Amino acid sequence: MIKEIVKIIENTKIKRPLVHAITNNITVNDCANIIHAAYGAPTMAQDEREVEQITSLCSSLALNLGALKAQDAMLIAAKKATELNHPIVLDPVAVGASILRSDTGKMLINNAKISVIRGNASEIRALAKGSTTTKGVEANKTDRTTEENLEEAINMVCQYSLQTGSVIMMTGAIDLISDGKNTAIFRGGSEMMSRITGAGCMLTALTATYCGANPDKCFASAVTAAAVMNVSAQIAEKRVRELMEGTASFRTRLIDSVSMISNEQLFENVRFEILKK
Amino acid sequence: MIKEIVKIIENTKIKRPLVHAITNNITVNDCANIIHAAYGAPTMAQDEREVEQITSLCSSLALNLGALKAQDAMLIAAKKATELNHPIVLDPVAVGASILRSDTGKMLINNAKISVIRGNASEIRALAKGSTTTKGVEANKTDRTTEENLEEAINMVCQYSLQTGSVIMMTGAIDLISDGKNTAIFRGGSEMMSRITGAGCMLTALTATYCGANPDKCFASAVTAAAVMNVSAQIAEKRVRELMEGTASFRTRLIDSVSMISNEQLFENVRFEILKK
Amino acid sequence: MIKEIVKIIENTKIKRPLVHAITNNITVNDCANIIHAAYGAPTMAQDEREVEQITSLCSSLALNLGALKAQDAMLIAAKKATELNHPIVLDPVAVGASILRSDTGKMLINNAKISVIRGNASEIRALAKGSTTTKGVEANKTDRTTEENLEEAINMVCQYSLQTGSVIMMTGAIDLISDGKNTAIFRGGSEMMSRITGAGCMLTALTATYCGANPDKCFASAVTAAAVMNVSAQIAEKRVRELMEGTASFRTRLIDSVSMISNEQLFENVRFEILKK
Repeated sequence: MIKEIVKIIENTKIKRPLVHAITNNITVNDCANIIHAAYGAPTMAQDEREVEQITSLCSSLALNLGALKAQDAMLIAAKKATELNHPIVLDPVAVGASILRSDTGKMLINNAKISVIRGNASEIRALAKGSTTTKGVEANKTDRTTEENLEEAINMVCQYSLQTGSVIMMTGAIDLISDGKNTAIFRGGSEMMSRITGAGCMLTALTATYCGANPDKCFASAVTAAAVMNVSAQIAEKRVRELMEGTASFRTRLIDSVSMISNEQLFENVRFEILKK
Repeated sequence: MIKEIVKIIENTKIKRPLVHAITNNITVNDCANIIHAAYGAPTMAQDEREVEQITSLCSSLALNLGALKAQDAMLIAAKKATELNHPIVLDPVAVGASILRSDTGKMLINNAKISVIRGNASEIRALAKGSTTTKGVEANKTDRTTEENLEEAINMVCQYSLQTGSVIMMTGAIDLISDGKNTAIFRGGSEMMSRITGAGCMLTALTATYCGANPDKCFASAVTAAAVMNVSAQIAEKRVRELMEGTASFRTRLIDSVSMISNEQLFENVRFEILKK
Repeated sequence: MIKEIVKIIENTKIKRPLVHAITNNITVNDCANIIHAAYGAPTMAQDEREVEQITSLCSSLALNLGALKAQDAMLIAAKKATELNHPIVLDPVAVGASILRSDTGKMLINNAKISVIRGNASEIRALAKGSTTTKGVEANKTDRTTEENLEEAINMVCQYSLQTGSVIMMTGAIDLISDGKNTAIFRGGSEMMSRITGAGCMLTALTATYCGANPDKCFASAVTAAAVMNVSAQIAEKRVRELMEGTASFRTRLIDSVSMISNEQLFENVRFEILKK
């Protein structure tokens, strides 16, 4: 798998995919910069009058439920990307926290072929089970993936992947990525990820970047994004601790690390296993 | 008072309040990150179709007049927060610079129970006196609080606090915070605050964070936010000067300092007095 | 010319012009911060109900086609700024990539007196020739200015400047700035500019800042903005390489350098020539 990750990254550097991201205003700059960091080219157009044309020029589409006002634009872009067979990565931000978000999430899933759904434990569970414990952008304590509920969580993402036909990425202290047959389990990353805004949105944008250059390998692209993000977060945290810096520097150094990550850094630091069903 | 500040901060770390901020697109990322830095959890939802649900999940509400397009959302959220007795912090950005901003500011003050109003000298004077010298996001020279007009300024914020029932924070080179009886006077901070965008918006978000965890102590929470911001700015400026960095690094190191501030740093560096009436 | 650049910068520090920028949500924070870095004061108001009042308080106006939803606000502000004889700097982001952008770009050019048009090679060519090769925010390879097509490119910007009456800034690895008689050619800058989002938007905002303080010298202001941006990018890249940092740090250090640039740094590092017709 590590060889496949390296190929995914190399391929992205060569193809420099144009990524269309319709995302929230809070973290849109971070998302654009992380797409650049991974050698993609971002376009964040979200006017419903032009998104069909814009998405047609691109290689992949990222949809972020935080962009609620761009609901119509998201639907138009999602339909067009489905028609063109572009990978679509959906980030169901805070789904379950309001009826509007739940309805918008369902609407997008029902009207487009979603390649990857990337959310935290509360968001993925809200979609899969219709539970309503989401309290915002962070996962509820009871939902989080731990060593104790790991088996149940793996079965859940696996089943939800089979049900939707999408790769499911349920991320947090433990990340689970499943295509219904294989489930990757990542431990590692950095606790500082939860002290900044946008870590999840950036991971979604990064996933869309790798998918854009590798449209037939969405599971491997999702695994690559999680690997790059986790290792980059470890490197960033180490540097921030050494220099006695804080959370804003961590954000900067996280994107820095994504922009500079080497195969050696990946090989040395990445920790994951893959379960096959 | 310094003991109360320490308690406010400790309490916020323990409770990790969910803060609903409806704020402008320019500094929304900084606001979310400073809420995180202070151990709160931000949610920046501003769709009028969901804000009532979102604000109900939160502990406090920050309203920023820069989010003019979210006028309806602000009103709905403000009414709900008032009903739930959540602290509301209002930032009347550039009020007085346009009729729209003045009307929106009045509309929010008239329809909700505002716990704290945080603005620069031109903004607070525009609200209190109906003056119209505001020329944008910075205070006019003639309005600024100086040693010369200090007494008049203290009387003004004190009276405006009594008139509105809100804690008034009028910030700048000298910060005044009044609940009508007590007025805190801060000198210090950093001149670099005026060389970046968002210092005021971030202070508003920080105030809402402390108020969220300490809803019965809005005056002390406002004083805490000013203390943390001023000391963090001093620490950030010192580091930036040592490393020969500029304004963008100051912004990063300001949020860094908020995320790492210790009681010792506060004790050593904070400079303020409290006048009682 | 270098003396004129120094005067433009000094004058801006003294006047501290209020700059009205209607710009996209992706890079709005960077634009506000670079205006501050150059000693201007930003206001990013884009509500059509207030922009006429806001632009009247300002010294210059920057319009960025990425703010498509603020189309009406851009038109109102552009008409008012034209009436008041304020310099207007237009950034035709991704013009040519959609019909909507092309129409909006034309609409603004036809209804206002634009002092400077700042775009990449694909955008300027799309406006000048009606070509439609734009594929997003980056210039197409075939459009880019190189030593091979330099003469043709110079003629093109020169003619387009005469045709529109605007100073034309066509930026990339080679920057061309023309008022129809004089054309400045910049080599230098940094390749890292293309690895972050917003380098172009920031250059537009910087140009509007210098134009705001020097309204009768828009060509010299545009040349100054290019000089400051190129030298700042070189300084930032050097520092980032020394410290083994990445793209996000480059963004921070770019704004840092603009905020701290000295005449000595400009003299030593700037590389440009001016062709006269």
